[in-house]
Amino acid sequence: MCVEDVMELMRGNVLFLFTVGNTLTAEIPGITVAGANMDLIKFTPPADVELLYYGKCRVIPFPPATPDGKPTPALITYTSLRLTGVPFLVVDSGLIVKPDVPLIDVKAPVGKNIEKEKAMEYEKAKHCFELAKTLGEKVSKLVDVIVIGESIPAGTTTAGAVLKALGIESKVSSSMPENPVELKKKVIEKAVSRLNGCESVLEIVSSVGDPVILVASAIACGSEKPVVFAGGTQMAAVAHVAVKMGFKNGYIVTTKYVAEDDSSDIHTISPLPVISVDPMLGKSKKKGLRAYEEGFVKEGVGAGGATLLAYSRGISSERFLIEIEKDYERIVERCGDV
Amino acid sequence: MCVEDVMELMRGNVLFLFTVGNTLTAEIPGITVAGANMDLIKFTPPADVELLYYGKCRVIPFPPATPDGKPTPALITYTSLRLTGVPFLVVDSGLIVKPDVPLIDVKAPVGKNIEKEKAMEYEKAKHCFELAKTLGEKVSKLVDVIVIGESIPAGTTTAGAVLKALGIESKVSSSMPENPVELKKKVIEKAVSRLNGCESVLEIVSSVGDPVILVASAIACGSEKPVVFAGGTQMAAVAHVAVKMGFKNGYIVTTKYVAEDDSSDIHTISPLPVISVDPMLGKSKKKGLRAYEEGFVKEGVGAGGATLLAYSRGISSERFLIEIEKDYERIVERCGDV
Repeated sequence: MCVEDVMELMRGNVLFLFTVGNTLTAEIPGITVAGANMDLIKFTPPADVELLYYGKCRVIPFPPATPDGKPTPALITYTSLRLTGVPFLVVDSGLIVKPDVPLIDVKAPVGKNIEKEKAMEYEKAKHCFELAKTLGEKVSKLVDVIVIGESIPAGTTTAGAVLKALGIESKVSSSMPENPVELKKKVIEKAVSRLNGCESVLEIVSSVGDPVILVASAIACGSEKPVVFAGGTQMAAVAHVAVKMGFKNGYIVTTKYVAEDDSSDIHTISPLPVISVDPMLGKSKKKGLRAYEEGFVKEGVGAGGATLLAYSRGISSERFLIEIEKDYERIVERCGDV
Repeated sequence: MCVEDVMELMRGNVLFLFTVGNTLTAEIPGITVAGANMDLIKFTPPADVELLYYGKCRVIPFPPATPDGKPTPALITYTSLRLTGVPFLVVDSGLIVKPDVPLIDVKAPVGKNIEKEKAMEYEKAKHCFELAKTLGEKVSKLVDVIVIGESIPAGTTTAGAVLKALGIESKVSSSMPENPVELKKKVIEKAVSRLNGCESVLEIVSSVGDPVILVASAIACGSEKPVVFAGGTQMAAVAHVAVKMGFKNGYIVTTKYVAEDDSSDIHTISPLPVISVDPMLGKSKKKGLRAYEEGFVKEGVGAGGATLLAYSRGISSERFLIEIEKDYERIVERCGDV
């Protein structure tokens, strides 16, 4: 069974890598809620990884949240990494603002707005892919499995564009229950219409993708060990890119909020086995956490993979939820956001 | 036996970390030969690690060498890493020029000329120490041992200043057989004379040290596993700083060219067990390699530790020398430097 295989891997020597970056596609009004407002969106990825390191953010004085205060999924991942002690590293995958953590540079450019122009210059993207692939090769030698999480506001839109350009029609998930499908479709179609259909995978990523898709797929391609893509639609795009570049041994692990989302279709579009995990947030006494069950946020920063990691290491779903709530109280509520 | 303990560790899961950076102390005429001329010295650390990654350099079109063509010790380390397949990562420890490799940023400042001024602002150095310590903690969880190598031209002078400030009188090694002892002593004395004797270890490093000593000692302090300091005098300074900050479990591994150097005294000044390794370059048919036996270059970029790593993994000293010579032919001779 697939789930058991992954849980066994996760009991071994695990490295969590976070590929975090920005696409200026996030500047299109209404396309993302990964940040309380436009000015804050660029701080979301660095703040997410600072939260993982320190249990608080440094580039901004409060944790990332939706405009109405639903907390970042980095909170769930933080709880898992805190409880398991599993090591992690952060890879700059096109960040506008750098987090105050040890940061691996693979020369990833910030992604441009795919509605208007190419995401990245091809030569720069190719070079970044090579560095990130080398990184994947090196770190994979140390471990049994690499788990990759992401944080990039508007990443579901760029992922949708990459999938469409690869001939995969997806419904495209979102961090909002009222998924702005029509807006995303319009952006995706405009981006993909610039292609002539003869592009290589890397040309597609550099044209209509984002630097997180680029770096995450490159790390996977370099890895000598299995890779868990911890995420939803975005990781489906990453997995497709990686598979087309020769990658074989991996899984997508995501929260049930993505896997059971009617407006998404991760099981259909994934080229790899998909494992769905339930962080049990629907049972939380905290409104901000129950919101996940209601279709808000749903996934990100490797939350699904981190939940499976915790479960693999013998942490019960009941205890995991209690610990998430403790962190929620300390990290989110004391900041006065909710 | 100490040697056997380290060799056993090196048969396990090993990560080689290279802490590479610059101190403007290298601009004092005559203080270093780690680079063919003044303009090239700043390229030596990035070129060294590019050589490790690619078997050739990118920031300059030829491998680092002394003004008369003796090759960088990175060559020996390259051969060992190529043969053993041991993974490595590079930590930016105050680089002026960035290498074209995956590079870990811990906010290390470039070191200033200690003859004239403080090496680093204390607050910046302290912050960098904390990030590098966190990095050491994370990566150590993945492995059995961390091996740390360095590349920083004029690093023996800053190391001498740190040792002196810590009350340890050392002879101070050099990459030249005619060690410019008087010049180094003058610089060291001028730097240390700015101290009042009441400084903390971190204040000493930030005043008269360099960013490589800072980052390497911080990584060791963060590590949950044993650390091998692969180097000579510089690693003795790193080890002293780390030990004063609470570090316990480690070794210095260096080439016999340092360990048996009459103008050095690594065994006396090291706070940790010292292991001396012979890369057998004295038996080489290449003049540029035999020069090591004659007191040129001698050590750097983790060459001694890398040699012990190769021997630990069952590579005979005869084969290792043959493989170094092959790499020498391909990397150094074809560039027309020697």
